[in-house]
Amino acid sequence: MFQSDGFRALGRQECLPLLALVPVGRIVYTRQALPAVLPINFSLDGDGSVLVRTSPASELVRAIDGVVVAFEADEFDAATRSGWSVVVTGRASVVTDPAEHERLSRTGPSSWMPLTEEVFVRIDSEMVTGRELNGALSMR
Amino acid sequence: MFQSDGFRALGRQECLPLLALVPVGRIVYTRQALPAVLPINFSLDGDGSVLVRTSPASELVRAIDGVVVAFEADEFDAATRSGWSVVVTGRASVVTDPAEHERLSRTGPSSWMPLTEEVFVRIDSEMVTGRELNGALSMR
Repeated sequence: MFQSDGFRALGRQECLPLLALVPVGRIVYTRQALPAVLPINFSLDGDGSVLVRTSPASELVRAIDGVVVAFEADEFDAATRSGWSVVVTGRASVVTDPAEHERLSRTGPSSWMPLTEEVFVRIDSEMVTGRELNGALSMR
Repeated sequence: MFQSDGFRALGRQECLPLLALVPVGRIVYTRQALPAVLPINFSLDGDGSVLVRTSPASELVRAIDGVVVAFEADEFDAATRSGWSVVVTGRASVVTDPAEHERLSRTGPSSWMPLTEEVFVRIDSEMVTGRELNGALSMR
């Protein structure tokens, strides 16, 4: 349906295929009581959870392991003022199961940064929301 | 300088010109005790603060007026695994001064959505941080 603000709300089944179109999203969390956001490349697991590969010593892992975070991805075209955004909200957790870690080492996301040690962090897709902006609605 | 994680930290004077390159960024805030994020088109004011135009009745305005938020923009190229991101952290406030509102109506950002009523929200650039990822560092 179209919202009063000119966006169309997207259902979960529309959102997950959109997420698969882009390589980078943004983890939204709290750091020292302030809102924080970090862009990172990711992939989707079969159940729709978001996977990232990072350093176990990273500030990110310390901040989000066990905590509910948001993960956002989007794609907009300024020329047509159209595009979409998807937000996954759910608990982030470091993958500790050795078999699962091994599986993700083969099938999970790579890191765009060199890592000497690595962990996978999974963000459960407990809530998936999305919006589509159709440029035809906003000609101002 | 290059961080241990492969990013180069950017200074404020490097960050603000990068922000001016992209039309859309993301406001990061808290909604009902959960992390929330909303992409929105924006412009920069002369002092480096971030300006958005939105509806005074929007959930966004209710959530962020008077509150410290983060505003993020980025640009990445998956082929070369390179790019940059900038985060502005500061207090968001609705512009209430009529002369300032009038100035921004002429010079501020437009809205990509049709608005029957509108306000400008300014995010002070109290803290501006950025990172640059150079694909040459991350060949894995």
